[in-house]
Amino acid sequence: MYYIGIDIGGMSIKTGLVDETGRLHFKKVFTTKPDEPSLIIISCIADFVKEMLAENALTLKDISGIGIGIPGSVDSKKGTVRYCCNINLVDVKLVAELSKLLNFKNIKISNDANCAALGETRFGAGRGAANTVMITLGTGVGSGIISDGRLFEGGFSAGAEAGHTTVMMKGGDECGCGFKGHWEAYASATALIRQTKRAVEKAPTSKLAELAEKGVTGRTAFDAAKQGCKAAQKVVRKYLEYVGIGLVNLCNLFYPEIVIIGGGISNEGDYIIKPLQRYANKYVYGRGYNPKIKITRAELLNDAGIIGAASLCMEQS
Amino acid sequence: MYYIGIDIGGMSIKTGLVDETGRLHFKKVFTTKPDEPSLIIISCIADFVKEMLAENALTLKDISGIGIGIPGSVDSKKGTVRYCCNINLVDVKLVAELSKLLNFKNIKISNDANCAALGETRFGAGRGAANTVMITLGTGVGSGIISDGRLFEGGFSAGAEAGHTTVMMKGGDECGCGFKGHWEAYASATALIRQTKRAVEKAPTSKLAELAEKGVTGRTAFDAAKQGCKAAQKVVRKYLEYVGIGLVNLCNLFYPEIVIIGGGISNEGDYIIKPLQRYANKYVYGRGYNPKIKITRAELLNDAGIIGAASLCMEQS
Repeated sequence: MYYIGIDIGGMSIKTGLVDETGRLHFKKVFTTKPDEPSLIIISCIADFVKEMLAENALTLKDISGIGIGIPGSVDSKKGTVRYCCNINLVDVKLVAELSKLLNFKNIKISNDANCAALGETRFGAGRGAANTVMITLGTGVGSGIISDGRLFEGGFSAGAEAGHTTVMMKGGDECGCGFKGHWEAYASATALIRQTKRAVEKAPTSKLAELAEKGVTGRTAFDAAKQGCKAAQKVVRKYLEYVGIGLVNLCNLFYPEIVIIGGGISNEGDYIIKPLQRYANKYVYGRGYNPKIKITRAELLNDAGIIGAASLCMEQS
Repeated sequence: MYYIGIDIGGMSIKTGLVDETGRLHFKKVFTTKPDEPSLIIISCIADFVKEMLAENALTLKDISGIGIGIPGSVDSKKGTVRYCCNINLVDVKLVAELSKLLNFKNIKISNDANCAALGETRFGAGRGAANTVMITLGTGVGSGIISDGRLFEGGFSAGAEAGHTTVMMKGGDECGCGFKGHWEAYASATALIRQTKRAVEKAPTSKLAELAEKGVTGRTAFDAAKQGCKAAQKVVRKYLEYVGIGLVNLCNLFYPEIVIIGGGISNEGDYIIKPLQRYANKYVYGRGYNPKIKITRAELLNDAGIIGAASLCMEQS
């Protein structure tokens, strides 16, 4: 038996066949039109499921459950999507509608960052841990929490939005959501790019400025820092401090055994993991008498969303 | 049948008899010497329990369970206390030792702020809610979280330390724990007193300064503000903003139905609840499509700790 994992994005919908050990057997990425009416999008999802099954000579009788990760606000108990910002799934009974279209009952949904955290915890960097926090450093800052072996979504499945907690309450940088001083405004790749550009203006003759001429990405500051550029090293040091502050805040609230770092920035590996580990060791509350928290890099990478979504339907979710 | 609730503080240990509806039938406050060896303190607790039972012509056969709130870090699953800062209960098997002394099995412990949150949720301002956050604005800032009807303690029971999350990452005020920029350094009564004293220096001819001559407390700024003093109103406005920032952070992570405000500052009632409600309505993430969060004042006041501790042993804790 397989589980189907579906990871919905703005421009593409990734689908996969996952077994109960978390192994991804087949993956297919479909493109979609994010502005179509909700019911058309759901009908497309049903078609994608059927298409993937047909390609693998399977039917829904071979499937134990379908899990879906949503880039927005869901009510996982009711199976409804309240709001998505980059695809038109708004105020819609996704589980009920899809269930009707496919004539299939075991369908579950959650927020996409939650799904990634669940996938990494069950089958990736958090294997064996009962309490984990996953932080995704990408365009935004995603966060997902596993507590006592179960996905923690907060009331109305609306919690775990660490990217939008305030870490700089006076004069903070502006967040994508419109408010100032949120963690995401300092710790996302987008924020790092902004920080890099500011540093380039201040140090126009630096290696950082030279590399920036090709266009600034989330890697520019890291690349220049590794080549010994002081200006870049300062950017990286400050950026990791910003990441560390929110990471420690999450540790003080959830006290995980493991914090898993994902997203594009996590490709820097030990170059970011080691300083973050030192930061956590120094600043987590009660570090003198509470168990040590391990900081580690995500393992499932781009597949965490599909595998995690699939595992929503596995026992103990 | 009764439950015994014990609320341990630095200088006093409160004990009470609580029934399964959360009603406190008897309460007694014992003084203790916080510097005695751990085992002596535990032996005193056993004596206090026996003394209270004798005074009420009861025996341990009339007791369903004993719950204890600890002002420090505990491992509630193991029944051990890791550390307390104002009483010498450090690295000690509290539940096992007390159980041996009393020859009584059903003893549970948790952090005192967690107990207060549990008491208020089951039997006070949060009755009927499955997801609540309680914030105690006193000498420090305590926080306790109820999630899906159960006490949320985080991994190793070491989480829920919202007072020590960073809200001001550059140039922040110093917290009691030694680090800077923590929420407690801005939102505790201690912080409000500091903020009031600063304002008095800047406005030495104000009503605030006049009231401050009798000594500054957590009430001074509120009293002067209610009498129309602009300087005091500014202190109160900023202070409530500080409280609001951390409150919204907790909402974004836990998304409770109700946030319960306790501690000395909560005596200001609607004068603080209404602005905090407006703040939450404006700043909680996803407020446009997620259910509204209600901010309310604690009801059990000083008894929340005892009642909550007792309810640790009631079903579904």
